[in-house]
Amino acid sequence: MEIVTRIARMRHLAPRLKQDRKKLALVPTMSALHEGHLSLIRRAQILADAVVVSIFFNPIHFQAGEEFDVPARDLARDAELMAKRGVDVLFAPSVDEIYPEDMLTYVTTDTLDCRLCGAQQPNYFRGVTTIVNKLINIVRPDYTLVGQKDAQQSIIIRRMVRDLSMDTEVFICPTHREPDGLVTSSRNALLSAEERQAATALYRGLQQAQKLVERNGVRDAETLIGAVRQVLDLEPLVRPEYIALVDMENLAPLTAIAEGGEGLLAVAAYVGQVRLTDNIILVGSTG
Amino acid sequence: MEIVTRIARMRHLAPRLKQDRKKLALVPTMSALHEGHLSLIRRAQILADAVVVSIFFNPIHFQAGEEFDVPARDLARDAELMAKRGVDVLFAPSVDEIYPEDMLTYVTTDTLDCRLCGAQQPNYFRGVTTIVNKLINIVRPDYTLVGQKDAQQSIIIRRMVRDLSMDTEVFICPTHREPDGLVTSSRNALLSAEERQAATALYRGLQQAQKLVERNGVRDAETLIGAVRQVLDLEPLVRPEYIALVDMENLAPLTAIAEGGEGLLAVAAYVGQVRLTDNIILVGSTG
Repeated sequence: MEIVTRIARMRHLAPRLKQDRKKLALVPTMSALHEGHLSLIRRAQILADAVVVSIFFNPIHFQAGEEFDVPARDLARDAELMAKRGVDVLFAPSVDEIYPEDMLTYVTTDTLDCRLCGAQQPNYFRGVTTIVNKLINIVRPDYTLVGQKDAQQSIIIRRMVRDLSMDTEVFICPTHREPDGLVTSSRNALLSAEERQAATALYRGLQQAQKLVERNGVRDAETLIGAVRQVLDLEPLVRPEYIALVDMENLAPLTAIAEGGEGLLAVAAYVGQVRLTDNIILVGSTG
Repeated sequence: MEIVTRIARMRHLAPRLKQDRKKLALVPTMSALHEGHLSLIRRAQILADAVVVSIFFNPIHFQAGEEFDVPARDLARDAELMAKRGVDVLFAPSVDEIYPEDMLTYVTTDTLDCRLCGAQQPNYFRGVTTIVNKLINIVRPDYTLVGQKDAQQSIIIRRMVRDLSMDTEVFICPTHREPDGLVTSSRNALLSAEERQAATALYRGLQQAQKLVERNGVRDAETLIGAVRQVLDLEPLVRPEYIALVDMENLAPLTAIAEGGEGLLAVAAYVGQVRLTDNIILVGSTG
């Protein structure tokens, strides 16, 4: 595995990885690799002949004072993990390499980027679309793999690629979960034992809603959101930021899932000081 | 020459035009081809092995009620002109083909896009960067040729390509002029004989400033802008919108050209009802 820190070197390597019609996949990450990332890498290796994993902690995601938990960056550990898994290239550029001092260009997805998680962090998704646009331009992957764990981010990236006719196919891959259902995330390490237990309420709440859909044919947002809230309310350590049922394409709030249609049920909550998110896709019954 | 109207077909053709390490150039236009475009095409043919010219009148440049003169679209005439000149592909997609109904993604260049011409047309350059970004993604040219005639647009496109690490080289090509110095433009046809005569004041004013730089070593903005204004003021049909001396990279106003440095002297003016622009690059003397 080669560790690349320069854009020019990555640009030089990428077409070589694609020679003889080989397919190239990109897995963009923000470091602190965990089982969730590794599951994306495994999928990338099934899809493509070569896999580039990028590690870049994007400063333009964040504004001063935002409550984001910055995962500690340990490139040596991440590199070792990826080399073991047969990743072809680890692209880990510095912030200076990626952003010219006088960077002025941004990619935005109007309306999508201020919904759900974007309501509290106005520049967050502009940061996501800009860096992922740039990474795709540099690596030119046939496939770009993102996690349903970050559903809004994944939907926004897929939309950007379509709207700007970028020549890559976006795959949104299933969420990796711990045995008790909690989404695998580097932030979980920040939870106390008690908080860690309370945090399972997010997925338990979502599952409760899923049961209502599957067993009782419920499709209306109020009932489904209420079911999640009820589970969260039983955990004093959990403070919900939002619980929302939204359209899978434009993230607009749904009053109900259409018969046979889909809806994204998403939740963000603080557990102690740690902000966690989770989501599931619900399919409205036709009965 | 093939006329392509579909993104999928263009995507299919482009790598074929680049086979065997052949170089591909893109000349993006908004139709109504004239000698200015043809001079870009000639330069593209010198640079590259194959040339794609795009013709797309971009509706997101414009807002309702904006005073832009829409050049009449005559694709058959444009196609004939280009076939004669040996253009390889004319890419002329429809608005529906380029913009999904629910298009939400835009590319912006902060601050650059509200200077000069952007001050009056707030969404104009967002439209430019978005469509050119998309055209480059579809055609994947090695070289993208734009005209210094539209200096702000060219500088913004060059900046976007750099900031987003797009894999194309932007060439800003010299302005094509009529024998009396007026910038070649489809809008010139909208001028009356008297207005056509008055319109030469734009370039005459710029030349006056250039003389002051070259013969008298003048570098300060006030004197140079004053020189242009003096010439324009002699023409009652000409109403200046702006006269500005700006930095070549970030379009910020300059108080003076640095010794041995460059400055863009740009003018926009209405001649009758027709809005015209012109600009020259001035190099500060070192004496």
